[in-house]
Amino acid sequence: MSRELRHLKTLEEARTILWEALPERVREGRFGGQLVEIGGAVGLLLDEDVASRTDLPPFDRSTMDGYAVRAEDTFGASEGLPAYLKVVGDVQMGEGPAFAIADNEVARIPTGGMLPEGADAVVMVEHTQGWGADSVEVLRPVAPGDNIVRRGDDVRVGDTILPAGHRLRPQDISALAGLGLVEVRVRRPAVAVLSTGGELVPHSQSPAPGQIRDMNGPALFAAVRAVGGEPIDLGLVRDEADSLRAALRGGVETADLVLVSGGTSVGTEDLTPEVIDSLGSPGVLVHGLALKPGKPVVVGLVGEVPVFGLPGHPTSCLVIFRELVAPIICAAAGLPRPRGPALRARLSRNFASQAGREEFFPVRLEERDGEWHAMPLIGPSAFISTLVSADGLVRVPAAAEGLYAGDLVEVEPFE
Amino acid sequence: MSRELRHLKTLEEARTILWEALPERVREGRFGGQLVEIGGAVGLLLDEDVASRTDLPPFDRSTMDGYAVRAEDTFGASEGLPAYLKVVGDVQMGEGPAFAIADNEVARIPTGGMLPEGADAVVMVEHTQGWGADSVEVLRPVAPGDNIVRRGDDVRVGDTILPAGHRLRPQDISALAGLGLVEVRVRRPAVAVLSTGGELVPHSQSPAPGQIRDMNGPALFAAVRAVGGEPIDLGLVRDEADSLRAALRGGVETADLVLVSGGTSVGTEDLTPEVIDSLGSPGVLVHGLALKPGKPVVVGLVGEVPVFGLPGHPTSCLVIFRELVAPIICAAAGLPRPRGPALRARLSRNFASQAGREEFFPVRLEERDGEWHAMPLIGPSAFISTLVSADGLVRVPAAAEGLYAGDLVEVEPFE
Repeated sequence: MSRELRHLKTLEEARTILWEALPERVREGRFGGQLVEIGGAVGLLLDEDVASRTDLPPFDRSTMDGYAVRAEDTFGASEGLPAYLKVVGDVQMGEGPAFAIADNEVARIPTGGMLPEGADAVVMVEHTQGWGADSVEVLRPVAPGDNIVRRGDDVRVGDTILPAGHRLRPQDISALAGLGLVEVRVRRPAVAVLSTGGELVPHSQSPAPGQIRDMNGPALFAAVRAVGGEPIDLGLVRDEADSLRAALRGGVETADLVLVSGGTSVGTEDLTPEVIDSLGSPGVLVHGLALKPGKPVVVGLVGEVPVFGLPGHPTSCLVIFRELVAPIICAAAGLPRPRGPALRARLSRNFASQAGREEFFPVRLEERDGEWHAMPLIGPSAFISTLVSADGLVRVPAAAEGLYAGDLVEVEPFE
Repeated sequence: MSRELRHLKTLEEARTILWEALPERVREGRFGGQLVEIGGAVGLLLDEDVASRTDLPPFDRSTMDGYAVRAEDTFGASEGLPAYLKVVGDVQMGEGPAFAIADNEVARIPTGGMLPEGADAVVMVEHTQGWGADSVEVLRPVAPGDNIVRRGDDVRVGDTILPAGHRLRPQDISALAGLGLVEVRVRRPAVAVLSTGGELVPHSQSPAPGQIRDMNGPALFAAVRAVGGEPIDLGLVRDEADSLRAALRGGVETADLVLVSGGTSVGTEDLTPEVIDSLGSPGVLVHGLALKPGKPVVVGLVGEVPVFGLPGHPTSCLVIFRELVAPIICAAAGLPRPRGPALRARLSRNFASQAGREEFFPVRLEERDGEWHAMPLIGPSAFISTLVSADGLVRVPAAAEGLYAGDLVEVEPFE
């Protein structure tokens, strides 16, 4: 990709360029498959059809408490003229009966018990007399198959139980357990997350004078998880070409997407695109967005793996994640894009913006007199106090030079 | 609780009895607090206020690339009459400057760099001439505080950043990282899950003749997770008083809720309530629901820990979980109860039901001619094929003797 193409793009242009460059399977969400234990798979999308490797039930089973019989021995039985049959055993739950049923023989059987050989029906205990004795009076006839479920009646070997793309619900987990599946293949793209910046230390460490804690690593980790991806924490990487190249190569080889958030050090802005280009084609697709916040954004593709350079400023980082990265993860996870339905609110004060570039600014929402009011939060975008008090973002179109108090604006609420 | 009170209750009665017996903090969702790493805390509710243990920024910081100055040295500077100031050092990102600024001295400083002692403002590089030399011409004056952020401007030690009950979003995780928090206390009730039943084997094992795999353990594990709880798998417990008592006692001592799903063995139905009563007061609150499926349900409270005996049939088990258990977990997790808004559909065939007890039956939904049609799934409720093809449940009120084809019914859709 030549340098000339790297002029500032609008967000919409960047989205289109990226989307057209993505492999079809990624665009359509057919990627990011991985095996997970069924108990942890609820809410996730199946990556492949699940077929049964077993018949269910695995044996003929009683659906009632009663007597396993040969149905023909009960034909004609009635309260006035019961069939007198010999009890030859007790079927125990969880055990295969060690005996068979011959002519005019029966066995006591509990609900769920395995039908002994020779039996082809169950008489409900309510339709008999003499429980516990060596023989029993059957007061009503049964037909073959009555009160039993045959092996494979529910599911046969090879039946497709759940199709690829299905979102697993608790009852599906129940079914998978019944089929003896311990793991299933679900779509949960692995997303490598790393941060660069000479001034950064891991958030778990105390910064020395001049240092600050890495905020974007944990924030992206959480954001990936929130949209159905599996974050892989690659930690902090030194702000230098060889280290960054080694880290990004590792990410590209093991993950489905790679995110690197930049520090604010001089020079970082150019390092990420250079390294992406050096890792493989097509390389950098977009470098720089006509957007505030978001100018240092890099969008690239190494082979089939999208690689994003995200701004170091915490709000900007999450805005670009939401606009460009999240839709790809959501496609695989089968979730709607993380934009809630926009909410119309009245702006509570003027907001100046530079014409020629799009802008997002954080607002706090308040409901008054049945109407939403959006108050711009005008602290630096890196301020934690701004981050935590924002309820949503307002977009200022590129053509606008700002918005005025009283304007009706569209707010994209967080969450 | 005397035996006489243990007649069959309606679902609504059971809910009321349970709710009134619950400790206030459980009813109001103020329970289930546990420490989790911030990266895994997104989407969860804070269990306590989070206060800052640090000033942010932790030092006076530049917000521009330029020169750290004493503002008074620039007063009066203009393009025509620049202030000539001496460059005494370079502030490096991530390092505290080892020098101070005296009268008529400046230091080069990057965005985010730590202000050297003596400096009280930053002049943007655009308003200077002579970058890289030993002295610099400042072309415009700055006031003290210009282009810098002071220590604590964002957050001061002791400030409450996020209140108890707040649902953590990615930007909040960003903020927590910036404050150096590694773990936060969130509400995620621990729910012990165990299964009893002589015929059961763990789903990961091959059943011998007469045995079947435990489906409810994995299903409840998944269902707990889906509503914001943390499942604790206690596995299979022998269908016998001492084993069950030891397992339930362990659950009550370590978890916030305990769920035991019964097998279908004869005798299991009475074991769970006996054991619950033996563990502590108030003990069993409800034994048996006038509901199909769900008759063997037990609702109890041991000290402040709710203990539920759930039916062995997979659909019944999940219906009772949804109706009685999920609301308690959801209250702590701050999620809406897991009933979607009911959807009106036209029943596609008659459904017979016994008057005097409520009934839920699974349906498949189809949209035709702009209207939803609900087709009752009439296989045994234990059938996996029924479980996986159900899209929702229809409730038949206790007074009804059934529903007719063409009736408009309310369907509670799954998910």
